[in-house]
Amino acid sequence: MSDSRGDCTLILLRHGESEWNSKNLFTGWVDVDLTDKGRAEAIRAGELIKELDRQPDVLYTSLLRRAITTANLALDKADRHWIPVHRDWRLNERHYGALQGLDKAETKEKYGDEQFMAWRRSYDTPPPPIEPGSTYSEDGDPRYADLPGGPPRTECLKDVVERFVPYYTSTIEPDLRAGKTVLIAAHGNSLRALVKHLDGMSDEDVVGLNIPTGIPLRYDLDSDLKPKIIGGTYLDPEAAAAGAAAVASQGAK
Amino acid sequence: MSDSRGDCTLILLRHGESEWNSKNLFTGWVDVDLTDKGRAEAIRAGELIKELDRQPDVLYTSLLRRAITTANLALDKADRHWIPVHRDWRLNERHYGALQGLDKAETKEKYGDEQFMAWRRSYDTPPPPIEPGSTYSEDGDPRYADLPGGPPRTECLKDVVERFVPYYTSTIEPDLRAGKTVLIAAHGNSLRALVKHLDGMSDEDVVGLNIPTGIPLRYDLDSDLKPKIIGGTYLDPEAAAAGAAAVASQGAK
Repeated sequence: MSDSRGDCTLILLRHGESEWNSKNLFTGWVDVDLTDKGRAEAIRAGELIKELDRQPDVLYTSLLRRAITTANLALDKADRHWIPVHRDWRLNERHYGALQGLDKAETKEKYGDEQFMAWRRSYDTPPPPIEPGSTYSEDGDPRYADLPGGPPRTECLKDVVERFVPYYTSTIEPDLRAGKTVLIAAHGNSLRALVKHLDGMSDEDVVGLNIPTGIPLRYDLDSDLKPKIIGGTYLDPEAAAAGAAAVASQGAK
Repeated sequence: MSDSRGDCTLILLRHGESEWNSKNLFTGWVDVDLTDKGRAEAIRAGELIKELDRQPDVLYTSLLRRAITTANLALDKADRHWIPVHRDWRLNERHYGALQGLDKAETKEKYGDEQFMAWRRSYDTPPPPIEPGSTYSEDGDPRYADLPGGPPRTECLKDVVERFVPYYTSTIEPDLRAGKTVLIAAHGNSLRALVKHLDGMSDEDVVGLNIPTGIPLRYDLDSDLKPKIIGGTYLDPEAAAAGAAAVASQGAK
């Protein structure tokens, strides 16, 4: 399972456009579906993956529908629908606390640019916690019933790093060391957390990182599981540049 | 995870109509997709599962697209898309040998009723083996690369029993004993093999068993993992009866 290009390969895939991406709402752990555009993005991702010299041997997803469906559609297109799957809450999007379900533009207007950007883009400022029992809390959701202390009430990016990176090193890295090509289908902030770890980014730099939806990002890793190319390689670089710019401008309307 | 209805619950789901079901071709291990009707059946199965008092905690599928997609669509509809998944070749459809890709009605005409029924419905008569390198063999298919001796060249129902039942007892039964509700998304013959085991059917009786597509079949099992009701309970009994009759008449046109 190895070739001249690298000792092992990791492919990161942010889910395609979701119903709440398109409505400009904070989503976090709310389990919204993909839009038709998002499904098309996932299928396109599968076409790009299918052209790779190394095909995914194993899939990791979050517990959220938009990442799971993106992976299902992409792998079906790539004829890799049959590979083993592991799902874990640690790959989930950042929990957006009391902001879940709110309109991004209205939130920006109400709280001002500075507070808005602190919640969205600071490394260690979580939004206010979500109230127990509120519409968009995860209370009683069976998929989180076994989490010690229950699901989080809010998270900053630092919290996502602290839950996802240990899972990556303990559970995903062994697959990479075994020579497997690993596909991770996840979310804007869980993938930022991982890219921060892979690329050795500072707390300051990671907040400026924008990962576009639906475009596979390939990392060839050396025998120490360090990236051969910092930042990895998008399988469709032009679309990735346009997509990253679109993500950066969210909330600006 | 238990209630008054049973110590544990198993839900069997045969994939919805595939492209080759609709064309009346022998499929076996050929990895054809669902038809639109098959997708609708899978979604309907998810609606039926969603109404259950016990929801699936874990999914087992074959390595074939029609079972995988059926499970994906059904679990998405039932809001159980996030449960753990295990895939294994032992859940695959019976390998149909040299018949794979042939028209059922033409095969019946060419070889006669008796030979046709022996291949389709005897317990221990496999079709002729598929030739290495022929269009519908699995040679070089990476999903079977690790099978000792490579993929089978042909199978009878007895062969399916001998590969699937040991997997069921070693791997799936422990989940049931742990109180989990298990969903198995598989195929006409792999599910017959399992039902034979569960219901203690004879080699003669199992060949008359027809499992309809897309209708979940529920087995509540006692503490010895024996069915409380022999034959289980279809979640839509009327549709199941009509579906079983349709399966029985295949090749008759």
